[in-house]
Amino acid sequence: MIKPRTPPGVMELLPRDQIAFQRMLDTIRRTFERFGFLPVETPVFELTEVLLTKSGGETERQVYFVQSTGALEKGGEGLPELALRFDLTVPLARYVAEHEHDLAFPFRRYQMQRVYRGERAQRGRFREFYQCDIDVVGKDVLSTRYDAEIPAVISAVFEALAIGDFTIHLNHRKLLRGYFEGLGIEGERQFAVLRELDKLDKRGEGPVRATLQGEGFGLPDDAVDRLMSFARVRSTGHDDALAKLAALGSGTALFEEGRDELRAVLEQLRVLGVPEARYAINLSIARGLDYYTGIVYETTLDAHPQIGSICSGGRYDNLAGHYTKSKLPGVGISIGLTRLFFQLREAGLVGTADSSVDALVTLLDDAGLGTALSLSQRLRAAGLNVETQLEPRKLARQLQYADRAGIRFVVIRGEDEAARGMVAVKDLRRGEQFEVAEADLGSTLQVEREQWRALGER
Amino acid sequence: MIKPRTPPGVMELLPRDQIAFQRMLDTIRRTFERFGFLPVETPVFELTEVLLTKSGGETERQVYFVQSTGALEKGGEGLPELALRFDLTVPLARYVAEHEHDLAFPFRRYQMQRVYRGERAQRGRFREFYQCDIDVVGKDVLSTRYDAEIPAVISAVFEALAIGDFTIHLNHRKLLRGYFEGLGIEGERQFAVLRELDKLDKRGEGPVRATLQGEGFGLPDDAVDRLMSFARVRSTGHDDALAKLAALGSGTALFEEGRDELRAVLEQLRVLGVPEARYAINLSIARGLDYYTGIVYETTLDAHPQIGSICSGGRYDNLAGHYTKSKLPGVGISIGLTRLFFQLREAGLVGTADSSVDALVTLLDDAGLGTALSLSQRLRAAGLNVETQLEPRKLARQLQYADRAGIRFVVIRGEDEAARGMVAVKDLRRGEQFEVAEADLGSTLQVEREQWRALGER
Repeated sequence: MIKPRTPPGVMELLPRDQIAFQRMLDTIRRTFERFGFLPVETPVFELTEVLLTKSGGETERQVYFVQSTGALEKGGEGLPELALRFDLTVPLARYVAEHEHDLAFPFRRYQMQRVYRGERAQRGRFREFYQCDIDVVGKDVLSTRYDAEIPAVISAVFEALAIGDFTIHLNHRKLLRGYFEGLGIEGERQFAVLRELDKLDKRGEGPVRATLQGEGFGLPDDAVDRLMSFARVRSTGHDDALAKLAALGSGTALFEEGRDELRAVLEQLRVLGVPEARYAINLSIARGLDYYTGIVYETTLDAHPQIGSICSGGRYDNLAGHYTKSKLPGVGISIGLTRLFFQLREAGLVGTADSSVDALVTLLDDAGLGTALSLSQRLRAAGLNVETQLEPRKLARQLQYADRAGIRFVVIRGEDEAARGMVAVKDLRRGEQFEVAEADLGSTLQVEREQWRALGER
Repeated sequence: MIKPRTPPGVMELLPRDQIAFQRMLDTIRRTFERFGFLPVETPVFELTEVLLTKSGGETERQVYFVQSTGALEKGGEGLPELALRFDLTVPLARYVAEHEHDLAFPFRRYQMQRVYRGERAQRGRFREFYQCDIDVVGKDVLSTRYDAEIPAVISAVFEALAIGDFTIHLNHRKLLRGYFEGLGIEGERQFAVLRELDKLDKRGEGPVRATLQGEGFGLPDDAVDRLMSFARVRSTGHDDALAKLAALGSGTALFEEGRDELRAVLEQLRVLGVPEARYAINLSIARGLDYYTGIVYETTLDAHPQIGSICSGGRYDNLAGHYTKSKLPGVGISIGLTRLFFQLREAGLVGTADSSVDALVTLLDDAGLGTALSLSQRLRAAGLNVETQLEPRKLARQLQYADRAGIRFVVIRGEDEAARGMVAVKDLRRGEQFEVAEADLGSTLQVEREQWRALGER
């Protein structure tokens, strides 16, 4: 006998949690589609040579390699031929380069699949997790107007998920780098400083300040002071964002370019009707990765800052330089849904969902089987998800089962009711019981369900 | 520069094909949920020791193993610790055994995920493919009434997929084995004969007959004749199925048990309203796998028998004997959707889908950007999927783009229309153009879309 268990570092859910998770996936997908993004799915494994184009370091150490039994037996030099994707960005780059001539640009794609990382086993760290990504990829050029559409999507997604108030933090790499230039910080040192500033939230101001003043950087106190006060800039509300940007004074050409782009994004967000409480300038966010070149985004839950960013991304200059000579600039974001779901559950913000089953059609005795079956089919035809009790049990046990399973309606057709062409319905959510003509059962429950949904969706 | 390409043996789709595929997945999922099945997802990899409990042979040779960089460097004896799932049945067995005390039985689950097999590279053979499974798993016992619900689900799924007429073929292992008993074929030989009969469709009657008469089996001509005529039994229509079952004469206790169960299933299918053209007795199907113990199902497209079975399954006695002492009988089916989609496309039965984007809001000049953005958001609020043209282009090019992308509505707000508070809409599907008040645009397009959908869904 083998102990049934999953490998460490994966999230496997019981059905009612899976339903809650699935509803989040559906909501995100629906919102991505509302904004005209098209679905892409890629294979879970890529050719190692295609996946690991960047001279690896951190990323490569975390990769999972894949070998069939045959390849395993053969052994051989070097890395195995296949590896599991560790994000959705490299597969996107490969996909766009491979299918370049079959795609229309700007190419708007969403992708919601699992990715794999050989993380150290630790509570809340996942080796397999969902990413939900959108990107708009241009050919040669991509207007910065797309930079404003992305926060509108983020806003719509988290409104729809209804997990509390949130803020989309905006910053701009050109603004940052332009500001550094003004302080005499140039070239590669800019990236080093960026990476330090990115740690402000985690390490706090003191340690970051010490690092920047220390040997490696050796920045004068005055420059560090200015960096720190720059990084403290956060806006509340649309006009304040514009005012804070204006108050930064004038700077290098790069700085001004970044500021102009941010202003244009703010302007468009207003036109798009994104509530001003949902976005803010936050000059401390930098997004460590070197490939961001323009606007950067992070999103936090106002009541749960400790969760950190739940949706991040930004603008990049060239997506697929390893695979094609075409220049493919883009802008995109990623939601790490597995981690988010885990954190929301820990914080009590998502609970066990009601069942996806709307109704249980009970069975009181064998003679009732035919009616139970046909009644169930009629409810299904009316659009309801129905489970039929196929073996008679005590009614109390069937009710108990429905209650535990989170099924809302329990349909009971006793002799009394049958004689009058009626069925009884227990509505476990409202705690009510009512009678309805058998012929009207489907439409009645359907209406009830829609009303409840409309309520739930505000 | 690295050539961007996928590994051999995977199916990667362009967006419009992905939309078609996604719609099939959604339809299957919706139908599974209609019948009260609950979602389960499991990790793509399992512990090798858990996955490979059966002393491997064919299956083990086809397994993909997974190793992180660290494990790879360490090397070490024996098989790697992790392996990719090769079906959804073993993960289900592990899941049910692991979560036994948290699940309600009978446990009705659906699972729609990709599985992995180290198949030889060959057109139409996939190393990564979707399976869409449902199973009902009982604890200790599971009424044969569940056997009838499964074909009702199959029927509803393929009606909803609308890929043509289909037949669900029914047979019963007890009927088969009881018949063999009557011919003096006992014990292990029954399974050997079953496996031969299972090849009838592929090899034809002559070769199978030769094998059964040959040395290995050495069955007398008379017994082979009777096996062949038994295997030729196929019904057309409900009453014919009952008549054909009756015409088999009387048999052993096992035979009669199988026949009774089949009759009960037929009776319930009628009550469930499954059209009688959709199911048939077919005594040639055997489902090679030894673990089926009762009813077995195969499904074929009437106009495309060469595709073979597109949905198969059956009843088994004990799901998870390797992981738990509990007896877990069940019944289930699997749809190999990747292969089915590939075959349907080859046969011209599924085409490139219309876009998931309902409307393109055009942009004629920069001055129109604000209106284009707010118009788009209003359409989204009305439930439409909308792409906004963010950079002005010639109208002809925007129309051409929408046409190629399969977007139905093109929204144009020229100066003329704007002055009257109107917008023009080109309906590329109907080939018509109409004007509508800006305020009514969302509701108008929504109604148009719903009408079209209703038409499409009969």
